[in-house]
Amino acid sequence: MATAPSEPIAISLGDPAGIGPEVLAKCWDNRSGFNLPPFVAIGDPRSVEAVWDGPIELITDPRQADSAFDLGLPMLQLAAADSDVPGHPSIAGAHCSLDALEIAVGLARSGSASAVVTGPVSKEQLYAIGFAHPGQTEFVAERCGVAASNVAMMLAGPTLRTVPATTHVAFADVQSRLSQSLVEARARAVLRGLQRNFAIAEPRLAIAGLNPHSGEGGALGREEIEMIQPAIAALADEGWRVTGPHPADTLFHASARAGYDAALCMYHDQALIPVKALHFEDAVNVTLGLPIVRTAPDHGTAFDIAGQDRADPRPMAAAIRMAADCAANRAATA
Amino acid sequence: MATAPSEPIAISLGDPAGIGPEVLAKCWDNRSGFNLPPFVAIGDPRSVEAVWDGPIELITDPRQADSAFDLGLPMLQLAAADSDVPGHPSIAGAHCSLDALEIAVGLARSGSASAVVTGPVSKEQLYAIGFAHPGQTEFVAERCGVAASNVAMMLAGPTLRTVPATTHVAFADVQSRLSQSLVEARARAVLRGLQRNFAIAEPRLAIAGLNPHSGEGGALGREEIEMIQPAIAALADEGWRVTGPHPADTLFHASARAGYDAALCMYHDQALIPVKALHFEDAVNVTLGLPIVRTAPDHGTAFDIAGQDRADPRPMAAAIRMAADCAANRAATA
Repeated sequence: MATAPSEPIAISLGDPAGIGPEVLAKCWDNRSGFNLPPFVAIGDPRSVEAVWDGPIELITDPRQADSAFDLGLPMLQLAAADSDVPGHPSIAGAHCSLDALEIAVGLARSGSASAVVTGPVSKEQLYAIGFAHPGQTEFVAERCGVAASNVAMMLAGPTLRTVPATTHVAFADVQSRLSQSLVEARARAVLRGLQRNFAIAEPRLAIAGLNPHSGEGGALGREEIEMIQPAIAALADEGWRVTGPHPADTLFHASARAGYDAALCMYHDQALIPVKALHFEDAVNVTLGLPIVRTAPDHGTAFDIAGQDRADPRPMAAAIRMAADCAANRAATA
Repeated sequence: MATAPSEPIAISLGDPAGIGPEVLAKCWDNRSGFNLPPFVAIGDPRSVEAVWDGPIELITDPRQADSAFDLGLPMLQLAAADSDVPGHPSIAGAHCSLDALEIAVGLARSGSASAVVTGPVSKEQLYAIGFAHPGQTEFVAERCGVAASNVAMMLAGPTLRTVPATTHVAFADVQSRLSQSLVEARARAVLRGLQRNFAIAEPRLAIAGLNPHSGEGGALGREEIEMIQPAIAALADEGWRVTGPHPADTLFHASARAGYDAALCMYHDQALIPVKALHFEDAVNVTLGLPIVRTAPDHGTAFDIAGQDRADPRPMAAAIRMAADCAANRAATA
């Protein structure tokens, strides 16, 4: 971990009926073993009490988190209208999870928090209350005044960082969503993010092809020739260190990974399969291209195991550590 | 390694100007360290002599391979019309590589060889001499009288085996090539192959979804609902142990891998990315659904490094060992 930032990390609990409350409580329990800096949880304390017997320190100002952190889990209190039952999501819980997200982002925007970590939400529940974004990433981007195409969803593990150019899109729609300008925009967001969040002065980006074997010179598809190569040329003209298009199947073994700081992939599974195969327990979702630091554990609400003391806190711990590292890197280079 | 089969393994050298001759010679050099059974190479001895100073034992009958194996690299001699220059493929070399493939398959079909291992060929060169198959796999299938849809291209590493339902197909064409009947046919080839080649009496097959998160119940694509789930139901009705459709991004971490013997994926990169990320040096291409055992190292001709003593023999060694294991398993259960 880099030096802890001076402001706490703001963490939205996510859906109160999911595993967010449990993994965050376990993170506080093991804050020393996990090497975690002070953080403040935002959500309904009852959802934590439903799954944990430890101490909660209700605070009203994030600046109190530092001193409260040794006494209990610091929380900014939000109340859901109903009581929260683990494993049973509700409309009130969805409102609560959205409010927590909104407040966490606001605290980071105002400088009262050094970074945001977002707990897992239920998209189905959020859609039911009128949430109009594909996911939390796009919501955070909008609240920060950044176009969704200019942010990048990075999955970062200890030996591999990947970014999908298209994200939660049906396989059939991937091609129509891809364009040279999108590849360039995502690449710039990744490259600048590697500089700002990861303190890599001259980042190296590898860009994957779309087709098997990168199209074999056009025999298996022409997107590499018509879209990806021109994007790489344009990025190189701007002075960025970009290589590709690389055949995706040979891009993720150890010696290949040593050749770049991040890989830009064309679609969801191309990017997430290798990171999760290699780093399932400690890959972190990092949003690049924002004026704030935002990370998230790369798992969902897991309603099926909520309230059973079975949830693994390591992904949340990794997300908190990475948020702290990114915030420290930004502070050091600001 | 299982018990060595009684007949030698027939190995086609591949393109004489590629790295096939070099990696095979290195395998013979290190046959003890690699724990390799007797094999016979089929190709132009001059292509081996161009990159290696070791002894070659020319034989005329595969049955001589066993006794010759301690003296030198056993070879069944084919002559290319031109001399072979590493890194410089020729039409004559393409004919030679095709002849070697034809003979190796014939020896296995006749029972004179226990298995076939195919060295890397140049598709461009083969196409130039009228080769009409997408690759060696389809050629071998035809020579064995098996429809291409009834064979499966497995990539097998120490902790993960995957099979793509579609193989060397442009991204844009994957969907139109997929069908319930293709998924079922590939699945049966894999399941029977796990029984015959890997001696797994009740194999467990995991089938991946096509879309991100397996389509999220239809929100991100309907192929899982309309094609893959019905295929799984039909296979289950036949008594096979098949699960899915699984989200591909969470199918390849260690605890997920423990739940199946092979994963059937929908397209090339979905299957090959995880195997090569985890097992780049020792993943072996195994063709299932054939009356013979056929494996191949999972790399190409690498013309760019041919003749420079830089080629890694480990993938070829792994392919030979796996061919021997599969042949022994077949012999034991025949």
